[in-house]
Amino acid sequence: MTMIARNFEVQKGTEATISKLPFSNEEYERRLEALRREMRTAGVDVFISFGPENIFYLTGHDTPAYQYVQACVVTMDATPINVIRHIDASNTLYNSWSKLAVGYQDEDEPISAIFALVQQVAKPDATIGLEDEAFFVSPKRYAMLTGLLQGAGYKTTATNPVGTLRLTKSAEEISCIRRAARISEKAMAAAIGAAGEGVNENFIAAEVWRVLVGNGGEFPGLPPFVTSGPRMCLAHATWSGRQLQAGDSLGFEIPGVVNRYVAPIYRCGTIGKPNAGFEKLAEACITSLEVLTASIKPGAVAADIHQVHVDNFSRYKLIVDHRTGYSVGVNYAPDWGEGNELSITRTERRELKPGMVFHLVPGVFIDDRTHITISETVLVTETGCEVITQYPRPLFIV
Amino acid sequence: MTMIARNFEVQKGTEATISKLPFSNEEYERRLEALRREMRTAGVDVFISFGPENIFYLTGHDTPAYQYVQACVVTMDATPINVIRHIDASNTLYNSWSKLAVGYQDEDEPISAIFALVQQVAKPDATIGLEDEAFFVSPKRYAMLTGLLQGAGYKTTATNPVGTLRLTKSAEEISCIRRAARISEKAMAAAIGAAGEGVNENFIAAEVWRVLVGNGGEFPGLPPFVTSGPRMCLAHATWSGRQLQAGDSLGFEIPGVVNRYVAPIYRCGTIGKPNAGFEKLAEACITSLEVLTASIKPGAVAADIHQVHVDNFSRYKLIVDHRTGYSVGVNYAPDWGEGNELSITRTERRELKPGMVFHLVPGVFIDDRTHITISETVLVTETGCEVITQYPRPLFIV
Repeated sequence: MTMIARNFEVQKGTEATISKLPFSNEEYERRLEALRREMRTAGVDVFISFGPENIFYLTGHDTPAYQYVQACVVTMDATPINVIRHIDASNTLYNSWSKLAVGYQDEDEPISAIFALVQQVAKPDATIGLEDEAFFVSPKRYAMLTGLLQGAGYKTTATNPVGTLRLTKSAEEISCIRRAARISEKAMAAAIGAAGEGVNENFIAAEVWRVLVGNGGEFPGLPPFVTSGPRMCLAHATWSGRQLQAGDSLGFEIPGVVNRYVAPIYRCGTIGKPNAGFEKLAEACITSLEVLTASIKPGAVAADIHQVHVDNFSRYKLIVDHRTGYSVGVNYAPDWGEGNELSITRTERRELKPGMVFHLVPGVFIDDRTHITISETVLVTETGCEVITQYPRPLFIV
Repeated sequence: MTMIARNFEVQKGTEATISKLPFSNEEYERRLEALRREMRTAGVDVFISFGPENIFYLTGHDTPAYQYVQACVVTMDATPINVIRHIDASNTLYNSWSKLAVGYQDEDEPISAIFALVQQVAKPDATIGLEDEAFFVSPKRYAMLTGLLQGAGYKTTATNPVGTLRLTKSAEEISCIRRAARISEKAMAAAIGAAGEGVNENFIAAEVWRVLVGNGGEFPGLPPFVTSGPRMCLAHATWSGRQLQAGDSLGFEIPGVVNRYVAPIYRCGTIGKPNAGFEKLAEACITSLEVLTASIKPGAVAADIHQVHVDNFSRYKLIVDHRTGYSVGVNYAPDWGEGNELSITRTERRELKPGMVFHLVPGVFIDDRTHITISETVLVTETGCEVITQYPRPLFIV
């Protein structure tokens, strides 16, 4: 039996994990070695990660309750140690790969716990790397920590290596995304099956959740998006109690999640026959998906892929108003994507690599009138592009 | 028809909102006036808020997609202006109280858009107040913005006034929380109704979501928590595909949400008759709820309320291992609470005020064996405490 200590000492979980770990030991070791290569290159002796997606990636620690500061402290030779709110340290000690945690009390300042741990594991002249692009350490606490570290004689440097490592998926990770896609597809079928004149958006969303979760879909970083009629023009709007009416356009974007890996899919449709304008918008999106999936391959530059979509939309007199796609993988609220790490945009010059997974989202907002997106989750293979999500692309009619 | 501009200019939505605003004009004006009083006291001429809960509170702008930086820029005399990712600016322009937005493109640096707006609205010697306790501006971008502002000759000061304003709820806000409680109660009944030997956690969670969302419950900042058996010891664990077994203890924590206001409720139970130990833990929680709700009143010091719970638990030889409760109100992921603004802890010396709403969470983790919490959402009234959530407190047996 493990007890969680009431001070800042490092504790180790000694029993088997309560749930089976989603990834092999080799997978976690590979991730950690890759991070250490980045640390060596950057001259970082001790690295502190704050992002829940990075902490999950490195240690398997998984909780949606990261409103209390979490940190993962990585050195060159020892198992990473998570600094976690006392009660949530249970998720590291009893149910993670690394099983090493420092718990802090609700009344404690978390930064004090992190600082105390660094003093235990770092040599006096060490360089400490800290994620400064993470959300869940506030600017105030980040400044507090760097101030303490510098005051104690450490060098500090801002560095965000884990996000880049996460972009290229292993076979184990791709397997999760494939399973997530099967759940997304089932929930999409349920959404379309539930929709119809007089039906409430809430009922459709309830069906989506029932099927997502009943099939093992985990809590997504963003909700399923269920919109209709005049609400289509509101980006990322979701169920609002509106009753569907004849002639409505409909938009459903659905995130199946397995072992925190997501495979989103977006479909649009209408109640009754679509008008010619909406049908034309759908054709623009579908043909963009076709040219995009034909163009995506290792070595392609993201901005060039974006341009393929821009060129296709221009044939429909449409101007692209948002990114063509974004990386997906581990997801925690408030995002289900990894677009902060890599998005396919006009200015992104990085090349695509085998194992990258993108949610391609060709679509357009037409002022305050409507919106359309038809999407796929796709994998960059050794030779080209594989579409992972499988659902008919044309507008559905209910 | 409003079009969203492709530069950093301020735009105004001119039509009626697409959905009915959840609060009266007077409510929004009251909030803004209260903020301006705080700004005057702090000597702040222009205030920049980054938190989605604060931006919603001040302007009605509501989207779960705040992975792109959002900011609300408040001056002493004009309507607040939101700086928002281009496509999501639709939610301000077409569906908020303030209807003023600057949209930035996916390729733009959001901080450039915020800085450009400040230069338009602030006098050259202005003092700019910025939220440095917000999550959704990274430490890197916060430093970028303060650097630009200081470089342009502005004074900057860190200030976080909106969270404190949110603590005391108006009649309109309390009405939302009451409606949210009714949804939480329905979903709790559904969870208990679905549970039983051989049932999968996923099925129970699917039922919870179906009932929450089907009754108009919005996307909560944290998922409903559905745990069982050996997984009870993992804080904030939720559905995992485990099949319920005879003798299991069960924990369900459920967040009904209306107009972004939450009323959570936590109940525990067993499959078959509970053992004496778990029954005793339940008695400790229930008696703590009784002494807490009898003690809560305007003027009571939070730490003294915490002590009431500590004293009660000590009669059961239990040590309190987390806060007694936390403020609830507007919620966005990754939290459904406002505990960062006010929690009932050993060290919190602030007094309770009429209109405050708390989720009281007496409970305890017993090492890696089990956990229990039995909770209520309560309102501080003019004279005492009103329990808002209504569901039998004793352990349920299925």
